[in-house]
Amino acid sequence: MESDFIAWLRRCVPAHPRLPLGLRDDAAVVSATGCGDIVVTSDLLTEGVDFRLHDCQAAAIGRKAVAVNLSDLAAMAARPVALLVSLALPRTGAATLARALYDGILPLAAEFEAAIAGGDTNTWDGGLVISVTALGELTARGPLRRDGAQPGDSILVTGSFGGSLLGKHLTFTPRVREALALHARYELHAGIDVSDGLSLDLSRLAAESQCGAAVKLAAIPVDPAAFELTRQQPAGPSPLEHALADGEDFELILAAAPGEAQRILQQQPLDIPITCIGRFVPQRGLWQENPDGTLAELTPRGWQHRGREK
Amino acid sequence: MESDFIAWLRRCVPAHPRLPLGLRDDAAVVSATGCGDIVVTSDLLTEGVDFRLHDCQAAAIGRKAVAVNLSDLAAMAARPVALLVSLALPRTGAATLARALYDGILPLAAEFEAAIAGGDTNTWDGGLVISVTALGELTARGPLRRDGAQPGDSILVTGSFGGSLLGKHLTFTPRVREALALHARYELHAGIDVSDGLSLDLSRLAAESQCGAAVKLAAIPVDPAAFELTRQQPAGPSPLEHALADGEDFELILAAAPGEAQRILQQQPLDIPITCIGRFVPQRGLWQENPDGTLAELTPRGWQHRGREK
Repeated sequence: MESDFIAWLRRCVPAHPRLPLGLRDDAAVVSATGCGDIVVTSDLLTEGVDFRLHDCQAAAIGRKAVAVNLSDLAAMAARPVALLVSLALPRTGAATLARALYDGILPLAAEFEAAIAGGDTNTWDGGLVISVTALGELTARGPLRRDGAQPGDSILVTGSFGGSLLGKHLTFTPRVREALALHARYELHAGIDVSDGLSLDLSRLAAESQCGAAVKLAAIPVDPAAFELTRQQPAGPSPLEHALADGEDFELILAAAPGEAQRILQQQPLDIPITCIGRFVPQRGLWQENPDGTLAELTPRGWQHRGREK
Repeated sequence: MESDFIAWLRRCVPAHPRLPLGLRDDAAVVSATGCGDIVVTSDLLTEGVDFRLHDCQAAAIGRKAVAVNLSDLAAMAARPVALLVSLALPRTGAATLARALYDGILPLAAEFEAAIAGGDTNTWDGGLVISVTALGELTARGPLRRDGAQPGDSILVTGSFGGSLLGKHLTFTPRVREALALHARYELHAGIDVSDGLSLDLSRLAAESQCGAAVKLAAIPVDPAAFELTRQQPAGPSPLEHALADGEDFELILAAAPGEAQRILQQQPLDIPITCIGRFVPQRGLWQENPDGTLAELTPRGWQHRGREK
């Protein structure tokens, strides 16, 4: 989608008393009377853009459709509550395909204790479309937001980046448990999940926080798959470029004050590594920090053309 | 979709503590910790099945995608809170089409005070798919359910039935205000909205309530559009047959004890008529009540082949 449509939509959708945080995070916080706040997010996956039915098993596609939504809940530090799954299925073999999709959907829903709260199953003459909505609940800490990073905060990331196309884009574990554990134990200022690219999503978090981000490129944890991609395509991007721009890593970027970040880094409370890759700075934009401490502009790269609404 | 897939799915989706009512109503009630109950429903509309882009204006399609979900909230007597709108758009003219869809979506959302709480806007090589999720909140009366009708209860309906294809299927007003007003003022036992056909949806409500429904055919309020359809196609169904089977009337079927039903019928508290079309009976199934009081079997008809999950 063209980004001017997204801009148009943002202008047309008025501020609403039901949306205390507006529409600037990975998921929306919705206020219901006598009920409090609930976190909601939707992702729609289409054949040919997000997956090819011939390249991957249907169960893996169903799993991914749920996992990307759980990753959005993780970015808000929300606990999964329920999922709604709507399918547009090609007529031929529709029931078989639907069952195979649910073979991937149901175990992940069970793993994260999310109820399947309905949806809509249809057949049509087109390709496969999967639309999932996830509902989450907040802990006493409230939502983790995109707009809370402060100049001086450390940039922390979970896991490693790049080369997700070789498999991780289908098999990743949404960082729900990690987000909840960190949010409960430490003072986090902001968070986002990396769906469209480390550099692009980091620049978004910085922009929402009205500051900039300076990255030490050498500190970025590059996934072995990024090296493998470069080995397969030597004329293509370097492993570091893959890490910065590939997207679909579904790891977390977090902001924390330097002292708190130091505690997290020393304690390493997760089963996966947490790495500091730089710091937030007053100068708006994305930067790389040279060894001598000077900053040079870094262009955010990623899946911008997907034009997701949020 | 084949109905055995739906049956398979129901078996595979286990009972869940988050779903106090299970998945047998028009929308699901989801329990969130520290938040209470929220009502959720999803409907997905596809080009060629639910609409043809050449036959109707895009704004009308966008409006309908929201309205069918609001109608599901009405069936539960839930107050609309928020909507998530996900689109799979054909690449050519995607932004123009998306804006036109929202020209129908936004006014209806505003009319029913529902926030647009996000969604996902994508382009692809296929046709138009619109997936909407609606969130609603319950009043102090709790949800109106499908399973509360009792033998002896009157069958009440709002508005009139049949011939929706001539226009009402796009222009209908979801009966949210009507459901909330009736649920607040009277003791309703059960409710459902008519999406797939008066006779089919009535038989579903009766089945969930573990009783039967006996209809006085002469009492059914037949819409003028049903007569017009029969005039256009004299060899086709009669106006009454249209009323029983066409579907997409998006009116309400309600169950109330005879005395309460009498109060409602005398007071006629809505801007649209409420009619009694029969009574619930102990004998399971759908029946027509003859003038002499005997019952004859009536076959439920409607859009069963759409195979919606719920």
